Amino acid sequence: MSNSAAPLLITTGEPAGIGPEITLILAANGQLNNTVAIGDIQLLNQRAALLGLQLDVVEAAPGSEEVSSPGRLVVWPAALREPALPGVLNPANAGYVLETLQIAVDACQQGHAAAMVTAPLHKGVIIEGGFPNFTGHTEWLRDACGVDEVVMLLATDQALHAQSSHWQGSGDLRVALVTTHLPLREVADAVTYDKITRVSRLLAADLKRQFGIVTPRIAVCGLNPHAGEDGHLGHEELDVIIPALKALRAEGLDVQGPFPADTLFTPRHLVGIDAVLAMYHDQGLAVLKYAGFGQAANITLGLPLVRTSVDHGTALSLAGRGIADPNSLGVALALAKQIAARRANASIAL
Amino acid sequence: MSNSAAPLLITTGEPAGIGPEITLILAANGQLNNTVAIGDIQLLNQRAALLGLQLDVVEAAPGSEEVSSPGRLVVWPAALREPALPGVLNPANAGYVLETLQIAVDACQQGHAAAMVTAPLHKGVIIEGGFPNFTGHTEWLRDACGVDEVVMLLATDQALHAQSSHWQGSGDLRVALVTTHLPLREVADAVTYDKITRVSRLLAADLKRQFGIVTPRIAVCGLNPHAGEDGHLGHEELDVIIPALKALRAEGLDVQGPFPADTLFTPRHLVGIDAVLAMYHDQGLAVLKYAGFGQAANITLGLPLVRTSVDHGTALSLAGRGIADPNSLGVALALAKQIAARRANASIAL
Repeated sequence: MSNSAAPLLITTGEPAGIGPEITLILAANGQLNNTVAIGDIQLLNQRAALLGLQLDVVEAAPGSEEVSSPGRLVVWPAALREPALPGVLNPANAGYVLETLQIAVDACQQGHAAAMVTAPLHKGVIIEGGFPNFTGHTEWLRDACGVDEVVMLLATDQALHAQSSHWQGSGDLRVALVTTHLPLREVADAVTYDKITRVSRLLAADLKRQFGIVTPRIAVCGLNPHAGEDGHLGHEELDVIIPALKALRAEGLDVQGPFPADTLFTPRHLVGIDAVLAMYHDQGLAVLKYAGFGQAANITLGLPLVRTSVDHGTALSLAGRGIADPNSLGVALALAKQIAARRANASIAL
Repeated sequence: MSNSAAPLLITTGEPAGIGPEITLILAANGQLNNTVAIGDIQLLNQRAALLGLQLDVVEAAPGSEEVSSPGRLVVWPAALREPALPGVLNPANAGYVLETLQIAVDACQQGHAAAMVTAPLHKGVIIEGGFPNFTGHTEWLRDACGVDEVVMLLATDQALHAQSSHWQGSGDLRVALVTTHLPLREVADAVTYDKITRVSRLLAADLKRQFGIVTPRIAVCGLNPHAGEDGHLGHEELDVIIPALKALRAEGLDVQGPFPADTLFTPRHLVGIDAVLAMYHDQGLAVLKYAGFGQAANITLGLPLVRTSVDHGTALSLAGRGIADPNSLGVALALAKQIAARRANASIAL
């Protein structure tokens, strides 16, 4: 359904956070060609004025062909329920944030957009605002697109620009997660045979489809320290992970491990690897973000549309001050553009 | 009790692993001045011959003043219970491995050694060899020295050579752990108010005593992803970690956080920090070892003696092949030397 000539969409996210202003900064810098933002027109005008940005904020109808150009940000509108102040969360605007996402999903599904790039939202205020089951962008998009499973993959900027798919040395890293936003005490029970096999298949398929890697090589972390050390530090490797990887290998997937997570992220182990599959959030993302030095993007695998995201939160304490760093949003846009083009080429080749 | 003029000791660790040969390689390279190894003389001679190293292995009595010199490795002897082959674990030698540790502890306690540096042992084979409660070097040393609490701290080589104590940029990192070798499903319950306060006090005290940092600044990770996101992703931050840090601040400790572990390890957060306190093994050590690029060392804080260690395991598959990398042992030795000298100077100053 994607259309690579169509614009890229940025959902500007939590209105009290830095999402609106990092979008405006990229627009003012002339970095939003063929891109449209989704958000409240008045909010974006107010934030641009607050930051002293020389920028026209222009409203356009969803699906129209107008796109941003240097000094001009084209916006598909959604209306705030109540005015938003920088740094001040307001549950009344939860529905507004989700509406920006729905506009983007609809446009991608209908071929009016090539990809969507999401600025950060604030999970807590969405829940307080009347959506108690909300657990995050990724899960919301899974449900909105009607798919059973999605996978969160983060990539550093260096991985995005690498010449070859394999690990290229310092700073180059792609990390996918078996479990995402779960309390740590729930992780061990959530790492099941079914979950590992489904996530691994989806990861391998999307490394091919979205990243153009013909035969993806995946290194898998253990769950426990030292990957359980033959059962002395936990049994999940023996009971769950090793059998799951064995079954995946029998299907022809190149999944290696499970390896101790603390030594896997070193040159000797990463050589030849296209992605690391970590069992849980902090096991994989602390090292990914260290490697990326704040220059990483998040992509949701398994969706019928292309969705990338910044790797940071709403940064409420920085909002409205003009000091927020738009780099991760730039990386997420570049990644979305690259994947949308690859998917379009793959469709033409069929 | 330490005596910085006395030799540094290397316990050569699991005899089937790479410990004996990385010790021999450093000796052959002339990197073991003022150092003595502890292990089986015949084993060390066999391994030296197998690797074709030009080296005299010389036996000396514990406490004697003989030390190694280029081409000459001085060894305080312990006798293997059965001959050891590279890569082949034998539970019969479990007692031998622990005996090398006891010799080192006794010598440090009696002032015959300035510090001990441990090559890797294999936990599983020690347990199988008749020590079912053995959980690792660190815990064994805690009990052998009769202290209640010890803390595992890893430091990259760059942190060792940094001019100032604070974070110096890429590659410079010190990470301490609240919990160490526990199955992941037991971690959340092990992170208690008492444990966090005891570990933090000990970390702050030893950053002063062993690293010479006058007012240590410690950044603390949350337990859950996004540090629990105000309770939406777990309650341990609200119930345990935040109250513990509050109490520590009231005592005058500079403990900051809890921060989300996946963004803490980035330049913006690390500036001005002397050490990161992670809640569990893979949360802190994956990024530490990535940063150190295999050049990190482990130090046990809270002991009455100086103990450092390599940051890797026995590497059974590499043993006897002459391809094992002795760099981490070299870093551990340099760290032990530095700390022993600082403790000796501090004693003189008192």
